[in-house]
Amino acid sequence: MGWAEGFIAVDWGTTNRRGYRLEPGGTLADRFEDDRGILSVPAGGFPEAVAEIRARLGDRPMLLAGMVGSNRGWVEAPYVACPAGFADLAERLIWAESGRSAIVPGVCLDRGRDADVMRGEEMQILGALAAGMIAPDAIVCHPGTHNKWIRLEGGCITRFRTVMTGEIYNLLREHSILADLLAGPAEPGEAFSEGVSHGFEQDDLTAELFSVRARFLLGKARREDMSSYASGLLIGADLKVGLRLAPEGEVVIMGRPELTRLYRAALDACGRAGREADGEQAFLAGANKLAELLR
Amino acid sequence: MGWAEGFIAVDWGTTNRRGYRLEPGGTLADRFEDDRGILSVPAGGFPEAVAEIRARLGDRPMLLAGMVGSNRGWVEAPYVACPAGFADLAERLIWAESGRSAIVPGVCLDRGRDADVMRGEEMQILGALAAGMIAPDAIVCHPGTHNKWIRLEGGCITRFRTVMTGEIYNLLREHSILADLLAGPAEPGEAFSEGVSHGFEQDDLTAELFSVRARFLLGKARREDMSSYASGLLIGADLKVGLRLAPEGEVVIMGRPELTRLYRAALDACGRAGREADGEQAFLAGANKLAELLR
Repeated sequence: MGWAEGFIAVDWGTTNRRGYRLEPGGTLADRFEDDRGILSVPAGGFPEAVAEIRARLGDRPMLLAGMVGSNRGWVEAPYVACPAGFADLAERLIWAESGRSAIVPGVCLDRGRDADVMRGEEMQILGALAAGMIAPDAIVCHPGTHNKWIRLEGGCITRFRTVMTGEIYNLLREHSILADLLAGPAEPGEAFSEGVSHGFEQDDLTAELFSVRARFLLGKARREDMSSYASGLLIGADLKVGLRLAPEGEVVIMGRPELTRLYRAALDACGRAGREADGEQAFLAGANKLAELLR
Repeated sequence: MGWAEGFIAVDWGTTNRRGYRLEPGGTLADRFEDDRGILSVPAGGFPEAVAEIRARLGDRPMLLAGMVGSNRGWVEAPYVACPAGFADLAERLIWAESGRSAIVPGVCLDRGRDADVMRGEEMQILGALAAGMIAPDAIVCHPGTHNKWIRLEGGCITRFRTVMTGEIYNLLREHSILADLLAGPAEPGEAFSEGVSHGFEQDDLTAELFSVRARFLLGKARREDMSSYASGLLIGADLKVGLRLAPEGEVVIMGRPELTRLYRAALDACGRAGREADGEQAFLAGANKLAELLR
Protein backbone atom coordinates (compact mmCIF):
# COMPACT_ATOMS: atom_id res chain seq x y z
CA MET A 1 0.00 0.00 0.00
CA GLY A 2 1.19 3.54 -0.71
CA TRP A 3 1.28 6.55 1.60
CA ALA A 4 -2.17 7.72 0.50
CA GLU A 5 -3.72 4.63 2.10
CA GLY A 6 -2.45 5.56 5.54
CA PHE A 7 0.87 4.97 7.28
CA ILE A 8 2.67 4.28 10.53
CA ALA A 9 4.55 7.01 12.42
CA VAL A 10 7.12 6.12 15.09
CA ASP A 11 8.70 8.41 17.66
CA TRP A 12 11.69 6.25 18.56
CA GLY A 13 13.88 7.58 21.30
CA THR A 14 16.83 6.34 23.29
CA THR A 15 14.84 4.46 25.93
CA ASN A 16 11.24 4.45 24.69
CA ARG A 17 9.25 4.33 21.49
CA ARG A 18 5.72 5.23 20.50
CA GLY A 19 4.05 3.93 17.37
CA TYR A 20 0.87 5.24 15.68
CA ARG A 21 -1.27 4.05 12.77
CA LEU A 22 -2.71 6.98 10.87
CA GLU A 23 -5.59 6.59 8.45
CA PRO A 24 -5.97 8.61 5.23
CA GLY A 25 -7.02 12.09 6.34
CA GLY A 26 -4.79 11.85 9.39
CA THR A 27 -7.11 10.08 11.82
CA LEU A 28 -5.33 8.17 14.57
CA ALA A 29 -6.48 4.54 14.31
CA ASP A 30 -4.16 2.72 16.71
CA ARG A 31 -1.15 3.35 18.94
CA PHE A 32 1.27 1.66 21.29
CA GLU A 33 4.08 2.68 23.58
CA ASP A 34 6.86 0.54 25.02
CA ASP A 35 10.39 0.66 26.39
CA ARG A 36 12.09 -0.73 23.28
CA GLY A 37 14.19 2.40 22.74
CA ILE A 38 17.11 2.20 20.35
CA LEU A 39 19.51 1.12 23.09
CA SER A 40 17.49 -2.07 23.55
CA VAL A 41 17.78 -3.04 19.89
CA PRO A 42 20.86 -5.21 19.21
CA ALA A 43 23.21 -4.41 16.33
CA GLY A 44 21.52 -5.44 13.09
CA GLY A 45 18.22 -5.88 14.90
CA PHE A 46 16.28 -2.97 13.42
CA PRO A 47 14.66 -4.81 10.48
CA GLU A 48 13.20 -7.28 12.97
CA ALA A 49 12.12 -4.52 15.39
CA VAL A 50 10.46 -2.70 12.49
CA ALA A 51 8.73 -5.86 11.29
CA GLU A 52 7.34 -6.27 14.79
CA ILE A 53 5.89 -2.75 14.66
CA ARG A 54 4.19 -3.62 11.35
CA ALA A 55 2.88 -6.84 12.88
CA ARG A 56 1.24 -4.73 15.60
CA LEU A 57 -0.03 -1.81 13.54
CA GLY A 58 -0.41 -3.16 10.01
CA ASP A 59 1.67 -3.48 6.86
CA ARG A 60 1.98 0.19 5.99
CA PRO A 61 4.70 2.59 4.95
CA MET A 62 6.49 4.03 7.91
CA LEU A 63 7.87 7.39 8.99
CA LEU A 64 10.40 7.26 11.85
CA ALA A 65 11.71 10.16 13.91
CA GLY A 66 14.04 10.50 16.88
CA MET A 67 17.22 8.70 17.89
CA VAL A 68 16.40 5.91 15.41
CA GLY A 69 18.16 8.22 12.92
CA SER A 70 21.31 8.59 15.05
CA ASN A 71 24.56 6.69 14.60
CA ARG A 72 23.27 4.12 17.08
CA GLY A 73 19.92 3.78 15.32
CA TRP A 74 18.69 1.97 12.20
CA VAL A 75 20.16 4.17 9.48
CA GLU A 76 21.88 7.47 10.22
CA ALA A 77 20.02 10.51 8.92
CA PRO A 78 22.47 13.43 8.89
CA TYR A 79 21.36 16.57 10.72
CA VAL A 80 19.77 19.43 8.78
CA ALA A 81 21.41 22.71 9.80
CA CYS A 82 19.45 25.69 11.12
CA PRO A 83 17.54 27.51 9.77
CA ALA A 84 15.42 24.40 9.19
CA GLY A 85 11.77 24.21 8.10
CA PHE A 86 9.41 21.48 7.03
CA ALA A 87 10.61 21.46 3.44
CA ASP A 88 14.17 20.83 4.65
CA LEU A 89 13.12 17.79 6.68
CA ALA A 90 11.12 16.42 3.75
CA GLU A 91 13.97 16.91 1.29
CA ARG A 92 16.48 15.25 3.57
CA LEU A 93 14.46 12.19 4.59
CA ILE A 94 16.60 9.06 4.53
CA TRP A 95 15.01 5.96 3.05
CA ALA A 96 15.85 2.96 5.19
CA GLU A 97 13.66 0.85 2.89
CA SER A 98 13.08 2.38 -0.52
CA GLY A 99 9.63 4.00 -0.66
CA ARG A 100 8.57 2.11 2.48
CA SER A 101 10.40 3.42 5.53
CA ALA A 102 11.67 6.96 5.82
CA ILE A 103 13.75 8.38 8.66
CA VAL A 104 13.31 12.05 9.56
CA PRO A 105 16.64 13.87 10.00
CA GLY A 106 17.48 15.71 13.19
CA VAL A 107 18.38 19.39 13.25
CA CYS A 108 21.70 20.91 14.26
CA LEU A 109 22.97 24.33 15.13
CA ASP A 110 26.51 24.76 13.84
CA ARG A 111 27.52 28.39 14.00
CA GLY A 112 31.03 29.35 15.09
CA ARG A 113 31.47 28.03 18.61
CA ASP A 114 27.73 27.43 19.09
CA ALA A 115 26.81 23.81 18.58
CA ASP A 116 23.67 21.89 19.39
CA VAL A 117 21.70 18.91 18.14
CA MET A 118 18.13 17.57 18.32
CA ARG A 119 16.43 14.42 17.09
CA GLY A 120 12.68 14.02 17.42
CA GLU A 121 11.75 17.44 18.79
CA GLU A 122 11.86 18.93 15.26
CA MET A 123 8.85 16.80 14.23
CA GLN A 124 6.85 18.10 17.17
CA ILE A 125 7.86 21.72 16.72
CA LEU A 126 7.24 21.86 12.99
CA GLY A 127 4.14 19.69 13.40
CA ALA A 128 2.73 22.11 15.96
CA LEU A 129 3.34 24.90 13.48
CA ALA A 130 1.60 22.96 10.69
CA ALA A 131 -1.37 22.35 12.98
CA GLY A 132 -1.62 26.00 13.97
CA MET A 133 -0.76 25.15 17.58
CA ILE A 134 2.10 27.65 17.49
CA ALA A 135 2.86 30.71 15.39
CA PRO A 136 5.61 30.92 12.71
CA ASP A 137 7.53 33.15 15.12
CA ALA A 138 7.57 31.50 18.51
CA ILE A 139 9.65 30.30 21.41
CA VAL A 140 9.20 26.69 22.45
CA CYS A 141 10.49 25.10 25.62
CA HIS A 142 10.61 21.31 25.32
CA PRO A 143 11.47 19.68 28.66
CA GLY A 144 12.58 16.06 28.95
CA THR A 145 15.80 14.34 29.98
CA HIS A 146 17.31 17.33 28.23
CA ASN A 147 15.32 20.52 27.92
CA LYS A 148 15.43 22.32 24.59
CA TRP A 149 14.70 26.00 24.02
CA ILE A 150 13.81 26.50 20.39
CA ARG A 151 13.35 29.70 18.47
CA LEU A 152 11.12 29.66 15.40
CA GLU A 153 11.32 32.54 12.94
CA GLY A 154 9.27 32.67 9.74
CA GLY A 155 8.29 29.03 10.27
CA CYS A 156 11.88 27.79 10.57
CA ILE A 157 13.91 26.62 13.55
CA THR A 158 16.59 29.30 13.61
CA ARG A 159 18.27 28.76 16.99
CA PHE A 160 18.05 26.38 19.91
CA ARG A 161 19.86 25.45 23.08
CA THR A 162 19.81 22.24 25.08
CA VAL A 163 20.05 22.27 28.88
CA MET A 164 20.80 19.05 30.82
CA THR A 165 18.32 19.88 33.59
CA GLY A 166 16.34 16.63 33.72
CA GLU A 167 19.38 14.40 33.49
CA ILE A 168 21.29 16.26 36.21
CA TYR A 169 18.27 16.23 38.50
CA ASN A 170 17.94 12.48 37.99
CA LEU A 171 21.66 11.92 38.62
CA LEU A 172 21.38 13.84 41.90
CA ARG A 173 18.27 11.89 42.92
CA GLU A 174 19.69 8.51 42.08
CA HIS A 175 23.40 8.64 42.79
CA SER A 176 24.46 11.71 44.80
CA ILE A 177 24.87 12.64 48.45
CA LEU A 178 21.51 14.41 48.06
CA ALA A 179 19.72 11.20 47.01
CA ASP A 180 17.91 10.53 50.29
CA LEU A 181 16.81 14.18 50.55
CA LEU A 182 15.45 14.17 47.00
CA ALA A 183 13.35 11.03 47.32
CA GLY A 184 10.05 12.96 47.36
CA PRO A 185 8.29 14.47 44.34
CA ALA A 186 9.04 17.95 42.95
CA GLU A 187 5.86 20.01 43.01
CA PRO A 188 4.99 23.61 42.12
CA GLY A 189 4.62 25.73 45.26
CA GLU A 190 6.57 28.00 47.55
CA ALA A 191 9.76 25.90 47.84
CA PHE A 192 9.81 25.32 44.08
CA SER A 193 9.37 29.04 43.30
CA GLU A 194 12.07 29.95 45.80
CA GLY A 195 14.43 27.56 44.03
CA VAL A 196 13.48 28.97 40.63
CA SER A 197 14.15 32.54 41.77
CA HIS A 198 17.54 31.61 43.19
CA GLY A 199 18.56 29.66 40.10
CA PHE A 200 17.34 32.39 37.77
CA GLU A 201 18.97 35.29 39.63
CA GLN A 202 22.17 33.77 41.00
CA ASP A 203 24.98 31.85 39.32
CA ASP A 204 26.10 29.48 42.06
CA LEU A 205 24.17 26.36 41.08
CA THR A 206 26.78 23.74 42.05
CA ALA A 207 27.26 25.41 45.44
CA GLU A 208 23.59 26.05 46.16
CA LEU A 209 22.87 22.37 45.53
CA PHE A 210 25.08 21.57 48.53
CA SER A 211 23.51 24.33 50.63
CA VAL A 212 20.22 22.45 50.27
CA ARG A 213 21.74 19.68 52.34
CA ALA A 214 23.42 22.00 54.84
CA ARG A 215 20.17 23.88 55.48
CA PHE A 216 18.44 20.58 56.15
CA LEU A 217 21.21 19.37 58.50
CA LEU A 218 21.07 22.67 60.41
CA GLY A 219 17.30 22.52 60.75
CA LYS A 220 16.70 25.53 58.49
CA ALA A 221 14.75 23.66 55.81
CA ARG A 222 12.21 20.84 55.75
CA ARG A 223 12.85 17.48 54.14
CA GLU A 224 9.56 17.62 52.25
CA ASP A 225 10.64 20.82 50.47
CA MET A 226 14.01 19.52 49.26
CA SER A 227 12.97 17.97 45.92
CA SER A 228 10.87 20.96 44.93
CA TYR A 229 13.58 23.44 45.89
CA ALA A 230 16.36 21.55 44.08
CA SER A 231 14.20 21.02 41.00
CA GLY A 232 13.29 24.72 41.06
CA LEU A 233 16.95 25.65 41.34
CA LEU A 234 17.88 23.65 38.24
CA ILE A 235 14.87 24.86 36.27
CA GLY A 236 15.58 28.48 37.28
CA ALA A 237 19.15 28.15 35.96
CA ASP A 238 17.65 26.58 32.84
CA LEU A 239 15.27 29.50 32.30
CA LYS A 240 18.13 31.96 32.66
CA VAL A 241 19.80 30.35 29.65
CA GLY A 242 16.65 29.74 27.65
CA LEU A 243 15.01 33.12 28.04
CA ARG A 244 18.05 34.69 26.36
CA LEU A 245 16.55 33.24 23.18
CA ALA A 246 13.23 34.80 24.17
CA PRO A 247 13.64 38.27 25.63
CA GLU A 248 9.88 38.75 25.42
CA GLY A 249 6.61 37.07 24.54
CA GLU A 250 4.79 33.90 25.46
CA VAL A 251 6.72 30.64 25.76
CA VAL A 252 5.05 27.50 24.43
CA ILE A 253 5.89 24.51 26.65
CA MET A 254 5.70 21.15 24.93
CA GLY A 255 6.29 17.76 26.50
CA ARG A 256 5.05 15.43 29.21
CA PRO A 257 2.52 17.13 31.54
CA GLU A 258 4.45 16.34 34.76
CA LEU A 259 7.32 18.39 33.35
CA THR A 260 5.43 21.09 31.45
CA ARG A 261 3.53 22.11 34.59
CA LEU A 262 6.81 22.62 36.46
CA TYR A 263 8.20 24.77 33.67
CA ARG A 264 4.97 26.72 33.51
CA ALA A 265 5.14 27.38 37.25
CA ALA A 266 8.78 28.39 36.85
CA LEU A 267 7.94 30.85 34.06
CA ASP A 268 5.21 32.27 36.32
CA ALA A 269 7.76 32.73 39.11
CA CYS A 270 9.95 34.70 36.68
CA GLY A 271 7.05 36.85 35.50
CA ARG A 272 6.83 35.26 32.05
CA ALA A 273 3.77 33.85 30.32
CA GLY A 274 3.82 30.17 29.42
CA ARG A 275 1.32 28.00 27.57
CA GLU A 276 1.35 24.20 27.56
CA ALA A 277 0.95 22.35 24.26
CA ASP A 278 0.45 18.63 23.66
CA GLY A 279 3.63 17.08 22.24
CA GLU A 280 1.95 13.92 20.96
CA GLN A 281 -0.68 15.87 19.03
CA ALA A 282 2.13 17.99 17.56
CA PHE A 283 4.10 14.90 16.57
CA LEU A 284 1.09 13.42 14.77
CA ALA A 285 0.45 16.70 12.95
CA GLY A 286 4.08 16.69 11.81
CA ALA A 287 3.86 13.10 10.63
CA ASN A 288 0.66 13.78 8.65
CA LYS A 289 2.18 16.82 7.01
CA LEU A 290 5.33 14.91 5.97
CA ALA A 291 3.27 11.98 4.68
CA GLU A 292 1.22 14.37 2.54
CA LEU A 293 4.43 15.45 0.84
CA LEU A 294 5.23 11.78 0.09
CA ARG A 295 2.00 11.02 -1.70
CA MET B 1 48.92 5.33 78.47
CA GLY B 2 48.08 9.04 78.52
CA TRP B 3 48.21 11.55 75.71
CA ALA B 4 51.76 12.61 76.60
CA GLU B 5 53.04 9.16 75.61
CA GLY B 6 51.87 9.52 72.05
CA PHE B 7 48.48 8.91 70.42
CA ILE B 8 46.60 7.81 67.31
CA ALA B 9 44.95 10.28 64.93
CA VAL B 10 42.31 9.15 62.45
CA ASP B 11 40.93 11.06 59.49
CA TRP B 12 37.74 9.03 58.97
CA GLY B 13 35.68 10.01 56.01
CA THR B 14 32.62 8.70 54.23
CA THR B 15 34.42 6.19 52.00
CA ASN B 16 38.03 6.11 53.27
CA ARG B 17 40.00 6.42 56.46
CA ARG B 18 43.60 7.18 57.32
CA GLY B 19 45.18 6.33 60.66
CA TYR B 20 48.46 7.65 62.10
CA ARG B 21 50.48 6.84 65.20
CA LEU B 22 52.19 9.92 66.53
CA GLU B 23 55.05 9.73 69.03
CA PRO B 24 55.61 12.26 71.82
CA GLY B 25 56.97 15.38 70.12
CA GLY B 26 54.71 14.79 67.15
CA THR B 27 56.85 12.41 65.08
CA LEU B 28 54.89 10.18 62.72
CA ALA B 29 55.73 6.58 63.66
CA ASP B 30 53.24 4.57 61.60
CA ARG B 31 50.32 5.05 59.27
CA PHE B 32 47.73 3.15 57.23
CA GLU B 33 45.01 3.98 54.76
CA ASP B 34 42.06 1.85 53.71
CA ASP B 35 38.55 2.04 52.31
CA ARG B 36 36.72 1.39 55.60
CA GLY B 37 34.91 4.71 55.50
CA ILE B 38 31.99 5.21 57.87
CA LEU B 39 29.51 3.85 55.35
CA SER B 40 31.24 0.47 55.50
CA VAL B 41 30.86 0.21 59.27
CA PRO B 42 27.62 -1.53 60.29
CA ALA B 43 25.36 -0.01 62.95
CA GLY B 44 26.96 -0.59 66.35
CA GLY B 45 30.21 -1.63 64.68
CA PHE B 46 32.40 1.33 65.62
CA PRO B 47 33.87 -0.08 68.87
CA GLU B 48 35.10 -3.06 66.90
CA ALA B 49 36.42 -0.90 64.02
CA VAL B 50 38.23 1.30 66.56
CA ALA B 51 39.70 -1.75 68.34
CA GLU B 52 41.02 -2.90 65.00
CA ILE B 53 42.78 0.44 64.49
CA ARG B 54 44.44 0.05 67.92
CA ALA B 55 45.44 -3.49 67.02
CA ARG B 56 47.24 -2.06 63.98
CA LEU B 57 48.77 1.07 65.50
CA GLY B 58 49.05 0.36 69.21
CA ASP B 59 46.97 0.80 72.34
CA ARG B 60 46.97 4.60 72.52
CA PRO B 61 44.46 7.36 73.08
CA MET B 62 42.77 8.38 69.87
CA LEU B 63 41.69 11.58 68.18
CA LEU B 64 39.15 11.13 65.39
CA ALA B 65 38.08 13.71 62.82
CA GLY B 66 35.78 13.70 59.82
CA MET B 67 32.47 12.01 59.12
CA VAL B 68 33.04 9.66 62.08
CA GLY B 69 31.49 12.54 64.08
CA SER B 70 28.39 12.77 61.89
CA ASN B 71 24.99 11.29 62.64
CA ARG B 72 26.04 8.20 60.67
CA GLY B 73 29.36 7.90 62.50
CA TRP B 74 30.44 6.59 65.90
CA VAL B 75 29.17 9.37 68.17
CA GLU B 76 27.73 12.60 66.83
CA ALA B 77 29.84 15.67 67.56
CA PRO B 78 27.67 18.74 67.05
CA TYR B 79 29.04 21.39 64.69
CA VAL B 80 30.88 24.42 66.08
CA ALA B 81 29.51 27.56 64.46
CA CYS B 82 31.71 30.09 62.60
CA PRO B 83 33.78 31.96 63.62
CA ALA B 84 35.64 28.84 64.80
CA GLY B 85 39.26 28.57 65.95
CA PHE B 86 41.39 25.90 67.53
CA ALA B 87 40.19 26.62 71.05
CA ASP B 88 36.59 26.08 69.93
CA LEU B 89 37.38 22.65 68.50
CA ALA B 90 39.26 21.67 71.67
CA GLU B 91 36.48 22.84 73.97
CA ARG B 92 33.83 21.00 72.01
CA LEU B 93 35.56 17.65 71.59
CA ILE B 94 33.18 14.77 72.18
CA TRP B 95 34.49 11.87 74.22
CA ALA B 96 33.36 8.60 72.66
CA GLU B 97 35.39 6.77 75.32
CA SER B 98 36.13 8.86 78.39
CA GLY B 99 39.69 10.18 78.28
CA ARG B 100 40.58 7.65 75.55
CA SER B 101 38.84 8.53 72.30
CA ALA B 102 37.88 12.07 71.35
CA ILE B 103 35.91 13.11 68.28
CA VAL B 104 36.67 16.50 66.75
CA PRO B 105 33.51 18.48 65.95
CA GLY B 106 32.83 19.76 62.45
CA VAL B 107 32.24 23.42 61.71
CA CYS B 108 29.06 24.99 60.40
CA LEU B 109 28.08 28.29 58.88
CA ASP B 110 24.60 29.24 60.05
CA ARG B 111 23.90 32.86 59.21
CA GLY B 112 20.50 33.88 57.92
CA ARG B 113 19.91 31.96 54.73
CA ASP B 114 23.57 30.96 54.38
CA ALA B 115 24.20 27.44 55.58
CA ASP B 116 27.16 25.16 55.16
CA VAL B 117 28.88 22.31 56.97
CA MET B 118 32.32 20.68 57.06
CA ARG B 119 33.75 17.68 58.88
CA GLY B 120 37.45 16.92 58.67
CA GLU B 121 38.67 19.94 56.70
CA GLU B 122 38.69 22.07 59.89
CA MET B 123 41.51 19.93 61.34
CA GLN B 124 43.60 20.46 58.22
CA ILE B 125 42.93 24.19 57.97
CA LEU B 126 43.56 24.98 61.63
CA GLY B 127 46.46 22.52 61.65
CA ALA B 128 48.05 24.28 58.69
CA LEU B 129 47.68 27.53 60.59
CA ALA B 130 49.27 26.01 63.74
CA ALA B 131 52.18 24.74 61.64
CA GLY B 132 52.71 28.11 59.97
CA MET B 133 51.76 26.67 56.57
CA ILE B 134 49.12 29.38 56.16
CA ALA B 135 48.64 32.84 57.66
CA PRO B 136 45.95 33.77 60.22
CA ASP B 137 44.20 35.65 57.41
CA ALA B 138 44.01 33.40 54.39
CA ILE B 139 41.83 31.84 51.74
CA VAL B 140 41.95 28.09 51.39
CA CYS B 141 40.51 26.04 48.56
CA HIS B 142 40.08 22.41 49.58
CA PRO B 143 39.07 20.25 46.59
CA GLY B 144 37.68 16.75 46.97
CA THR B 145 34.32 15.13 46.25
CA HIS B 146 33.06 18.50 47.39
CA ASN B 147 35.32 21.53 47.12
CA LYS B 148 35.36 23.92 50.06
CA TRP B 149 36.40 27.57 49.93
CA ILE B 150 37.35 28.67 53.41
CA ARG B 151 38.11 32.12 54.70
CA LEU B 152 40.33 32.47 57.76
CA GLU B 153 40.39 35.77 59.63
CA GLY B 154 42.45 36.32 62.76
CA GLY B 155 43.12 32.58 62.94
CA CYS B 156 39.43 31.62 62.85
CA ILE B 157 37.31 30.07 60.11
CA THR B 158 34.87 32.90 59.51
CA ARG B 159 33.14 31.88 56.28
CA PHE B 160 33.13 28.99 53.87
CA ARG B 161 31.24 27.62 50.91
CA THR B 162 31.00 24.10 49.55
CA VAL B 163 30.74 23.43 45.80
CA MET B 164 29.73 19.98 44.50
CA THR B 165 32.23 20.09 41.63
CA GLY B 166 33.94 16.71 42.14
CA GLU B 167 30.74 14.81 42.75
CA ILE B 168 28.97 16.29 39.73
CA TYR B 169 31.96 15.59 37.50
CA ASN B 170 31.98 11.99 38.70
CA LEU B 171 28.23 11.62 38.16
CA LEU B 172 28.63 12.86 34.59
CA ARG B 173 31.57 10.52 33.97
CA GLU B 174 29.90 7.47 35.42
CA HIS B 175 26.21 7.77 34.67
CA SER B 176 25.38 10.47 32.11
CA ILE B 177 25.02 10.73 28.36
CA LEU B 178 28.51 12.27 28.43
CA ALA B 179 30.04 9.19 30.08
CA ASP B 180 31.78 7.77 27.00
CA LEU B 181 33.15 11.20 26.06
CA LEU B 182 34.54 11.75 29.57
CA ALA B 183 36.38 8.44 29.86
CA GLY B 184 39.82 10.06 29.48
CA PRO B 185 41.72 11.98 32.17
CA ALA B 186 41.25 15.69 32.88
CA GLU B 187 44.61 17.44 32.47
CA PRO B 188 45.75 21.05 32.67
CA GLY B 189 46.28 22.50 29.20
CA GLU B 190 44.51 24.46 26.51
CA ALA B 191 41.17 22.61 26.59
CA PHE B 192 41.09 22.75 30.40
CA SER B 193 41.83 26.50 30.46
CA GLU B 194 39.20 27.15 27.81
CA GLY B 195 36.66 25.32 29.98
CA VAL B 196 37.75 27.26 33.07
CA SER B 197 37.36 30.60 31.28
CA HIS B 198 33.90 29.71 30.03
CA GLY B 199 32.74 28.44 33.42
CA PHE B 200 34.20 31.45 35.20
CA GLU B 201 32.80 34.08 32.84
CA GLN B 202 29.47 32.59 31.75
CA ASP B 203 26.53 31.24 33.73
CA ASP B 204 25.20 28.52 31.46
CA LEU B 205 26.86 25.48 33.03
CA THR B 206 24.06 22.95 32.54
CA ALA B 207 23.68 24.01 28.89
CA GLU B 208 27.39 24.20 28.09
CA LEU B 209 27.80 20.64 29.39
CA PHE B 210 25.51 19.49 26.59
CA SER B 211 27.28 21.67 24.02
CA VAL B 212 30.41 19.63 24.75
CA ARG B 213 28.66 16.64 23.24
CA ALA B 214 27.15 18.58 20.34
CA ARG B 215 30.52 20.04 19.37
CA PHE B 216 31.97 16.55 19.34
CA LEU B 217 29.10 15.14 17.25
CA LEU B 218 29.49 17.98 14.76
CA GLY B 219 33.24 17.47 14.48
CA LYS B 220 34.09 20.81 16.14
CA ALA B 221 35.93 19.33 19.12
CA ARG B 222 38.24 16.37 19.74
CA ARG B 223 37.33 13.45 21.94
CA GLU B 224 40.66 13.66 23.80
CA ASP B 225 39.85 17.23 24.94
CA MET B 226 36.40 16.43 26.35
CA SER B 227 37.33 15.48 29.93
CA SER B 228 39.68 18.41 30.36
CA TYR B 229 37.17 20.89 28.93
CA ALA B 230 34.25 19.60 31.04
CA SER B 231 36.38 19.48 34.18
CA GLY B 232 37.59 23.02 33.44
CA LEU B 233 34.02 24.16 32.96
CA LEU B 234 32.94 22.85 36.37
CA ILE B 235 36.07 24.17 38.11
CA GLY B 236 35.64 27.58 36.43
CA ALA B 237 32.08 27.80 37.76
CA ASP B 238 33.45 26.72 41.15
CA LEU B 239 36.09 29.50 41.14
CA LYS B 240 33.43 32.06 40.30
CA VAL B 241 31.64 31.19 43.55
CA GLY B 242 34.75 30.70 45.65
CA LEU B 243 36.65 33.79 44.65
CA ARG B 244 33.77 35.90 45.97
CA LEU B 245 35.17 34.96 49.39
CA ALA B 246 38.61 36.04 48.14
CA PRO B 247 38.47 39.20 46.07
CA GLU B 248 42.26 39.39 46.21
CA GLY B 249 45.40 37.64 47.44
CA GLU B 250 46.94 34.22 47.13
CA VAL B 251 44.75 31.12 47.41
CA VAL B 252 46.15 28.16 49.34
CA ILE B 253 45.05 24.89 47.71
CA MET B 254 44.99 21.92 50.02
CA GLY B 255 44.10 18.35 49.12
CA ARG B 256 45.13 15.47 46.89
CA PRO B 257 47.78 16.48 44.31
CA GLU B 258 45.77 15.26 41.27
CA LEU B 259 43.08 17.77 42.25
CA THR B 260 45.20 20.62 43.63
CA ARG B 261 47.15 20.86 40.37
CA LEU B 262 43.92 21.28 38.41
CA TYR B 263 42.71 24.04 40.75
CA ARG B 264 46.10 25.70 40.56
CA ALA B 265 45.97 25.66 36.75
CA ALA B 266 42.42 27.02 36.93
CA LEU B 267 43.48 29.88 39.21
CA ASP B 268 46.30 30.63 36.74
CA ALA B 269 43.79 30.77 33.91
CA CYS B 270 41.78 33.32 35.92
CA GLY B 271 44.87 35.40 36.69
CA ARG B 272 44.97 34.48 40.37
CA ALA B 273 47.92 33.18 42.36
CA GLY B 274 47.56 29.75 43.95
CA ARG B 275 49.90 27.78 46.19
CA GLU B 276 49.55 24.06 46.92
CA ALA B 277 49.82 22.83 50.51
CA ASP B 278 50.00 19.26 51.80
CA GLY B 279 46.71 18.28 53.44
CA GLU B 280 48.11 15.29 55.30
CA GLN B 281 50.90 17.34 56.86
CA ALA B 282 48.29 19.92 57.89
CA PHE B 283 46.07 17.23 59.42
CA LEU B 284 48.95 15.86 61.49
CA ALA B 285 49.88 19.35 62.68
CA GLY B 286 46.27 19.88 63.77
CA ALA B 287 46.18 16.54 65.58
CA ASN B 288 49.43 17.29 67.45
CA LYS B 289 48.18 20.70 68.47
CA LEU B 290 44.89 19.31 69.81
CA ALA B 291 46.71 16.49 71.65
CA GLU B 292 48.96 19.06 73.33
CA LEU B 293 45.85 20.70 74.77
CA LEU B 294 44.74 17.31 76.17
CA ARG B 295 47.89 16.63 78.15
